[in-house]
Amino acid sequence: MLIIEKVLLLKNSEIFKNCRETDLMEIASICQEYLVDKGVRVFNKGDRGNCMYFIYSGKVLIHDEEHEIVTLSENEIFGELSLLDTESRSASVTTLTDCTFLKIEQETFYDVIATNSDILKGIMRTLCKRLREQDRITIEMKKVMSL
Amino acid sequence: MLIIEKVLLLKNSEIFKNCRETDLMEIASICQEYLVDKGVRVFNKGDRGNCMYFIYSGKVLIHDEEHEIVTLSENEIFGELSLLDTESRSASVTTLTDCTFLKIEQETFYDVIATNSDILKGIMRTLCKRLREQDRITIEMKKVMSL
Repeated sequence: MLIIEKVLLLKNSEIFKNCRETDLMEIASICQEYLVDKGVRVFNKGDRGNCMYFIYSGKVLIHDEEHEIVTLSENEIFGELSLLDTESRSASVTTLTDCTFLKIEQETFYDVIATNSDILKGIMRTLCKRLREQDRITIEMKKVMSL
Repeated sequence: MLIIEKVLLLKNSEIFKNCRETDLMEIASICQEYLVDKGVRVFNKGDRGNCMYFIYSGKVLIHDEEHEIVTLSENEIFGELSLLDTESRSASVTTLTDCTFLKIEQETFYDVIATNSDILKGIMRTLCKRLREQDRITIEMKKVMSL
């Protein structure tokens, strides 16, 4: 994949859409293309994590053993928690289809975000969205359980 | 409350602990002290939100009507989602005890974070922690439901 293709891809995502082109060039240059077959465990809950994944194509399941948390697909990211707070992986991830990811390593990423609050804001919006979604799910489940 | 008291308070919180003193001074200067009695609704789900709250003393319940989401207390924040992503309030908040909050308004806050990525990182860590906690709760509930 050409760097310019990666830039266009990142530009279409919630997390990076407000970044300047020069910053996107920088991020694109540290993204590694990563192809994974269907049914493969990308990482396990409890693993030490030092990268996050941007889904170029395909679908993944975020889960804890047999318990499904959420399904993510094109233009979404996963693995960002460990990258941001340096705790271990909070859940496991398995591919539901053949997938192409862009993999972003911690160290280089830190260099880029240190000077760019737009990227941090993009990440924050994504985290907010997930928290709202999780709150919604928790409430739905509590409603079901109280029936 | 003196500005220096607010600074010390903010400095003890997860979200602001890595901020420089000059930035904390700036944030402290835009914090409004806000006293609320026990049993009062601070805001409703669906409200337009333009401030976040730092709990100086007391306990609040985050909920959706009768469904409890989480209880928060001293040194924790709430209402930050609407401040960060400008969506409506995702849940309601009611005080469980008499409370003293520091209230931070959107516009001034944006001015401060625009030039300070440490604050953004602190907020991000807090969001990460909540997401991990929510994931854990979701999984626990799914386990109970599958019994």
